[in-house]
Amino acid sequence: MLKISDISEFHLIKRLESVLLAHAVSNPGSLVNTSIGDDAAVISATDAIQVVTTDTMVENVHFRNETTTMIELGWKAIAVNYSDIAAMGCEPIYSVVTLGLRPDQLVESIEDIYRGFCEIVNRHGGEIVGGDIVRSDTFFISVTVVGQSKSGDVLKRNSAKVGDLIGITGHLGCSRAGLSALQKSLAVDEETKKHLIGSHNMPNPKLNEGVKLADYGIKTAMDISDGLINDLTKICEASSVGASIKSDALPIDKYLKLAFPERYLEFATSGGEDYELLFTGPPDIMEAIKDQAIINMQLVGSIIEGPSKVSIVDSKGNDLPTSTGGWDHFKENRDN
Amino acid sequence: MLKISDISEFHLIKRLESVLLAHAVSNPGSLVNTSIGDDAAVISATDAIQVVTTDTMVENVHFRNETTTMIELGWKAIAVNYSDIAAMGCEPIYSVVTLGLRPDQLVESIEDIYRGFCEIVNRHGGEIVGGDIVRSDTFFISVTVVGQSKSGDVLKRNSAKVGDLIGITGHLGCSRAGLSALQKSLAVDEETKKHLIGSHNMPNPKLNEGVKLADYGIKTAMDISDGLINDLTKICEASSVGASIKSDALPIDKYLKLAFPERYLEFATSGGEDYELLFTGPPDIMEAIKDQAIINMQLVGSIIEGPSKVSIVDSKGNDLPTSTGGWDHFKENRDN
Repeated sequence: MLKISDISEFHLIKRLESVLLAHAVSNPGSLVNTSIGDDAAVISATDAIQVVTTDTMVENVHFRNETTTMIELGWKAIAVNYSDIAAMGCEPIYSVVTLGLRPDQLVESIEDIYRGFCEIVNRHGGEIVGGDIVRSDTFFISVTVVGQSKSGDVLKRNSAKVGDLIGITGHLGCSRAGLSALQKSLAVDEETKKHLIGSHNMPNPKLNEGVKLADYGIKTAMDISDGLINDLTKICEASSVGASIKSDALPIDKYLKLAFPERYLEFATSGGEDYELLFTGPPDIMEAIKDQAIINMQLVGSIIEGPSKVSIVDSKGNDLPTSTGGWDHFKENRDN
Repeated sequence: MLKISDISEFHLIKRLESVLLAHAVSNPGSLVNTSIGDDAAVISATDAIQVVTTDTMVENVHFRNETTTMIELGWKAIAVNYSDIAAMGCEPIYSVVTLGLRPDQLVESIEDIYRGFCEIVNRHGGEIVGGDIVRSDTFFISVTVVGQSKSGDVLKRNSAKVGDLIGITGHLGCSRAGLSALQKSLAVDEETKKHLIGSHNMPNPKLNEGVKLADYGIKTAMDISDGLINDLTKICEASSVGASIKSDALPIDKYLKLAFPERYLEFATSGGEDYELLFTGPPDIMEAIKDQAIINMQLVGSIIEGPSKVSIVDSKGNDLPTSTGGWDHFKENRDN
């Protein structure tokens, strides 16, 4: 098995370029006119508003070698960035990727990361236009994505209004359940396990949904990466409003409920890494989007006056206890 | 002294934002309309061609704590990217920065990195619009810069023609000499030492020079990061031409010659990390740029037919021995 230190940096880059070329699909609308091989990649002029985001995954902090394949890791490193682009109501144009690699890592495993990049780009759009490969004792992947809004309407966090309804795409909690399934054995069938682990390792960014929400007049959205309560609190703080969620309006995935009959609500409200969209808008627009099935979504609560916090109310009108603590990697434990 | 692990990730980010705000200068032509605080930064539409580049610096691979201040490190992390933007004949629009940090690093030292970012942005343009902070056992800084060409003329590596003259900005070799001065004591005066170390730790990207070269009709350029011979070989390979350099035409910095009377030519031809521009063009244009002192430059040789290699010829017409080996961090030694 060939290690990175067995070949030159130049040859490693050539091999990774070959992976990109082998998986390239025709992209007639591409704005990219010079890619890898010069001091910088060249992008054609566009009259669209652009957005930029960057996210990094570090081994043993954001992922573990034992619980993800390198193809999944490549997919997810781009997916978490695409989710931010989706949350702005935009589409990805191009990405640059940096790998921090140990000399003893296998060349083939690095090619697999690039295969993962290609899979998600072929599925969700965009292009890999360049990057950097550096030696590091800690393995990491850093991705920066530039996206655009053709309509010019971007979705922000600071525009929620009292009276808005709150919507989410898809289901919440499966990714957190998948992490549990990876960490310890679960007494569930293979199909359930596969579904939960897939939600964790290969999330699908909600790019089409973000663009459609912007097209239908929605102004407020973010992606759910730190759990529903935690991320909705961020919208509340940015918009100076409160939020109330109805626990029985939360769509619960059947596999999640099967695998975690006692904890599914906890995972759905504060699990994290869901990469679904959380959005708010006036009732007429929100109900029209739902009724016309423009996207797969659920209405789960409403924006209210008051302090910038989130309450979760059960079917009897009682407030459920909530925790807003996101994960703080520098402390290695929950804030509260 | 406050460590990162003593405060929350949220508070660390707030403190770094404060550094950016405290140093911000008014930028009336800014394209950035939403920065830190949403899922992505928002950039206004522009009708200019864009370029993108990314470069990462890893502790004990690209820098050592003992030989650089954190302010210098912040400056250099941006400078090496700006140098790529300069080499395309472009100007920087915005940057995103990712820091991989150990929990035991001092908050104030991270603020100093941001002070370095601000210093170079205030001097050379552009804006910091976002980034990511992650926990990593290995300290690293990853920067992505997007630039633009207002004229639409970008400088490439693959356009050198037989008969072109070869030019360089500034002097070469001082950065490599500065690295030596940092690694072992040099029997030279403080002024010399300061000059050489400054060339290594706080290089000035040649942004104005790149834009002027493009404006005057130059088509071919790159920045010198791996040494003149190594980088000129890359232009030769991309353009399928050879190159001949006259050793006595190379401008030699007086401090470099003083500090390294035996090795100055070696440092000037294969030292690395110069971040000067290397460019080629038709004799009439090149001579006009030099004679009119459009930029500070020297003519050092010419593009010739033949294999894609670089020869260095002394005043008597003899070929000097050359080494094309760039630094391969995965091997920790020169290729040859």
